Amino acid sequence: MRALIFDLDGTLVDTVYAHVFSWQQALAEAGMPIDGWRVHRKIGMSGGLFTRAVAREIGRALEPAHAQALQQRHGEIFHQLLPDPQPLPGAIGLLQRLRSSGVPFGIATSGRRPEINRSLDRLRIPPDVVVVERGDVLRAKPEPDLFLACQERMGVDVRDCFVVGDAVWDLLAARRAGMLSVGVLTGGYGEEELIRAGAYRVYRDARELDESLDELGVLP
Amino acid sequence: MRALIFDLDGTLVDTVYAHVFSWQQALAEAGMPIDGWRVHRKIGMSGGLFTRAVAREIGRALEPAHAQALQQRHGEIFHQLLPDPQPLPGAIGLLQRLRSSGVPFGIATSGRRPEINRSLDRLRIPPDVVVVERGDVLRAKPEPDLFLACQERMGVDVRDCFVVGDAVWDLLAARRAGMLSVGVLTGGYGEEELIRAGAYRVYRDARELDESLDELGVLP
Repeated sequence: MRALIFDLDGTLVDTVYAHVFSWQQALAEAGMPIDGWRVHRKIGMSGGLFTRAVAREIGRALEPAHAQALQQRHGEIFHQLLPDPQPLPGAIGLLQRLRSSGVPFGIATSGRRPEINRSLDRLRIPPDVVVVERGDVLRAKPEPDLFLACQERMGVDVRDCFVVGDAVWDLLAARRAGMLSVGVLTGGYGEEELIRAGAYRVYRDARELDESLDELGVLP
Repeated sequence: MRALIFDLDGTLVDTVYAHVFSWQQALAEAGMPIDGWRVHRKIGMSGGLFTRAVAREIGRALEPAHAQALQQRHGEIFHQLLPDPQPLPGAIGLLQRLRSSGVPFGIATSGRRPEINRSLDRLRIPPDVVVVERGDVLRAKPEPDLFLACQERMGVDVRDCFVVGDAVWDLLAARRAGMLSVGVLTGGYGEEELIRAGAYRVYRDARELDESLDELGVLP
């Protein structure tokens, strides 16, 4: 039987646009203004990779302490903008159905505790579900470490895992982990961008994925 | 010689993500929560069309007075979030080069005065440039009225106009007006979405368009 590994932001909770806007604001405050769409297309990398990528793009060097301060400030603005992240349509129902059907699943996110706790609560993730976060691994997406750590802790085979994500970074990391992947449009990428990055299928959201589990061979 | 008709939000000024977030917040406050990506893919329609489309999508009827109040609230939140909209990279330079080269251009936006005045100021649009806004026509994008009114007031032929826009609504309205169109990625759509909607070419932003004007036959 297949196992599913979910990304969190943009895949299960509706946080991408608040992340884009709060990164833009934190960067502009630090004298590093950058267009919204460029931030959007980098969301889903770890915060550290993200800040380095932005710095490179605008031709600035960035000290680790400065990158750290930017991430801190992003977190503050994000929490002000969106104190209560909302589950995406169908997300809670999908996870409940997987659980009641005995399909193993886990979560692998570039976010960190305690920032992600609110989202996990809102999704009603039981405490025995494997959640791998940024602090658990050395290298974040698009490196495969988060997905491989999740799969190991779940005790399933790499070849049995489907990664579900909204960003090209999820799909790239899945390929590098040797896993199949499925895209969702809830992070605001276009369908072709996700397919080009390696998605085996693309669904609108968790609800459409839930209705399509037999297409993936996940449910018997 | 060709003439250019520009969309404003997402094409010349970096406002799309603030619009998405403020629409989401205004709709959530009104008991009509909707995912960010669905708002994003509707941005660029007029506010009236947008609110009706959202209401239909979530299965609610919407009185005109209620739609009006939602637009008002969206405007308030937007202004709080982004009091000073920033020109997108290359936008000011592109418009200045067109002007100094004698290439006719105008702006056709689903936005309204006075909300758009700040963006026009930041772009240093001289007062003699034709600007057609929502209030000038009966029907907004994806109807062709904004572009046709702009072309008429500029005194150029439909067949000589290139529309430049970031959203599928611009490209659809351009087709219906009988005009060629060019897409830019600064509104956060994927390249293939824009090509599929009819864009003759897609550039990253106004700067890349500026560097590519000879590909369009705009500069001699």
